[in-house]
Amino acid sequence: MPLWKVYHPVGAYTREDKHALSKRITGVYAEVPLPKFYVDVVFQEIPQDSFYVGGEPVRNFVRIHMDHIARQLTSEAAKTKFLARVEAAIAPFIKDRGFDWELHIDETPFDLWAVQGIRPPRAGTEDEKRWIVENRPSPRTDD
Amino acid sequence: MPLWKVYHPVGAYTREDKHALSKRITGVYAEVPLPKFYVDVVFQEIPQDSFYVGGEPVRNFVRIHMDHIARQLTSEAAKTKFLARVEAAIAPFIKDRGFDWELHIDETPFDLWAVQGIRPPRAGTEDEKRWIVENRPSPRTDD
Amino acid sequence: MPLWKVYHPVGAYTREDKHALSKRITGVYAEVPLPKFYVDVVFQEIPQDSFYVGGEPVRNFVRIHMDHIARQLTSEAAKTKFLARVEAAIAPFIKDRGFDWELHIDETPFDLWAVQGIRPPRAGTEDEKRWIVENRPSPRTDD
Repeated sequence: MPLWKVYHPVGAYTREDKHALSKRITGVYAEVPLPKFYVDVVFQEIPQDSFYVGGEPVRNFVRIHMDHIARQLTSEAAKTKFLARVEAAIAPFIKDRGFDWELHIDETPFDLWAVQGIRPPRAGTEDEKRWIVENRPSPRTDD
Repeated sequence: MPLWKVYHPVGAYTREDKHALSKRITGVYAEVPLPKFYVDVVFQEIPQDSFYVGGEPVRNFVRIHMDHIARQLTSEAAKTKFLARVEAAIAPFIKDRGFDWELHIDETPFDLWAVQGIRPPRAGTEDEKRWIVENRPSPRTDD
Repeated sequence: MPLWKVYHPVGAYTREDKHALSKRITGVYAEVPLPKFYVDVVFQEIPQDSFYVGGEPVRNFVRIHMDHIARQLTSEAAKTKFLARVEAAIAPFIKDRGFDWELHIDETPFDLWAVQGIRPPRAGTEDEKRWIVENRPSPRTDD
């Protein structure tokens, strides 16, 4: 959590771009705060002949699909704030480069999630705080 | 919205096939009506040694995963009708070509979605009507 | 249902590995019991420069995303038991090989799912029992 899948044109990003963008994305969640290692990003090149918007092939489009697990955005204020942070984080690599883009977030069940075989600690617990500080999963102590 | 991911065998479809199929898929949503540019389709070739059904490799199988965001299908009648439209839209490229196939739809939160940094207008609003007519996103006027 | 997407490093698995792992995954669902042909597994290689955890590229990480449709895990006991079965099924190809890993399950609407154009039978029906025994979809008789 989160799992980001970034579908982008072939050759749109260098290794350095992807590294830098993934750091910016990670920053959005580190601010929550959440453990940085929760943030998984998969970049996938989609050839123009396999990428369609409105029935037409696109060569300038980035589509992002996010799955959120650790936290749910419940209030309108939280949603607005979070989406604004995401847009700010990605803008240098998408909007500022002239790409079109679309993104959506799904929220999936907290209880159906495991990291290294461990079901992650609840929000705000001592275990979660330790996972944040150490930036790695470790055995839970709260149960 | 929707985001379709079409996992198919290597070489199953030509560029022309994918273009034509994406147009048919777009037609299903244009009928709702929804803006055509909402319809994103990603085709992805899966080699036989990476595609398994029931524990066996498949070379004749198409798996479609759809995320719906703009509308939810609430009644049994609406679900039945929608699935029938989808099956009719894809049949020339799947059933009629002898592929096996499976599809499922997830419905994800409307409020966690943005196109070009804009949260899309609600169903039936003047803004949505304009997006449909112009087939592109534009600043919202309703808030 | 389920649809498993296994994102893994380039070259992590041979054809034989993927076949064997998909059989183990299928076994988890066959035990429920569910028809074996419900179990779809897509393996996808992610190059190191496209795969990030916590903002850093990873070359030793397997990320699994599962969509469940046919059944929902409702009790804490059922979730714990299911996740333990999954971990046991995948361990020989992930933990025991020294990979890091993370997995999560989404549960999507039963009524928005079709196999070969047929909406699958409900849990425990005669139709479902026949689908299990025959390991293929066939016309429903219950409606």
